[in-house]
Amino acid sequence: MPSIFTSIVNGEIPCYKVAESETCLAFLDINPLTKGHTLVIPKLEVDYFYDLTDEVLSDVMVFSKKVAKAIQKVIPCERVGVSVIGLEVPHAHVHLIPFHKMSELSFANPKLKFSHEEFTAIANSISANI
Amino acid sequence: MPSIFTSIVNGEIPCYKVAESETCLAFLDINPLTKGHTLVIPKLEVDYFYDLTDEVLSDVMVFSKKVAKAIQKVIPCERVGVSVIGLEVPHAHVHLIPFHKMSELSFANPKLKFSHEEFTAIANSISANI
Repeated sequence: MPSIFTSIVNGEIPCYKVAESETCLAFLDINPLTKGHTLVIPKLEVDYFYDLTDEVLSDVMVFSKKVAKAIQKVIPCERVGVSVIGLEVPHAHVHLIPFHKMSELSFANPKLKFSHEEFTAIANSISANI
Repeated sequence: MPSIFTSIVNGEIPCYKVAESETCLAFLDINPLTKGHTLVIPKLEVDYFYDLTDEVLSDVMVFSKKVAKAIQKVIPCERVGVSVIGLEVPHAHVHLIPFHKMSELSFANPKLKFSHEEFTAIANSISANI
């Protein structure tokens, strides 16, 4: 069975798309730690981040840099933090989390809630700056 | 003034070195969240991770993959987590943190203590597997 992220790549499950390249996709995390929390994935389904080939790993990170720069333009933050954990969805993904204080980056924190309209507006504003 | 990590690169401050390439250095975090917690840095001093050039960013991540694979060979863990925060030392650095449970990755957790001999043995065992 394909991962939920592969279903998103294939358009079978909707997402709040932020950016797309030939090999990568970026979309909003729907359980965000902060406003603008975005996931970057390789379109190729590989479970563990460090099992990506050197080429795909580089692709994902260079793509994530473009996305992070756009996030910083529209979301007030000190920096965009990066986190790869990967136990929940067996498809490598990079969390990009705009933050002011380190404590905002803990995955134990309660997740934020946004309406469909709010998520759409956030995704569009980041996307417009890429 | 050079960053503390540049002083480590220049050999002016000691570290528990894990691996080195022409452009990158990996050494143990001396305030580790878990046994084997390693920092990977570009030798070039750049404060913010996403201000690295595409080439250096790719270099750092491909190098970090080699280090993560070695960590997994010697430290019992589910995976090696990746974290970039960067508020504490103004020199881009990637945390590689071997973990079993997501809760082990919180920077709010108390840091582990190891003796000089223990740190040396950990660094040497990872280094030998690169």
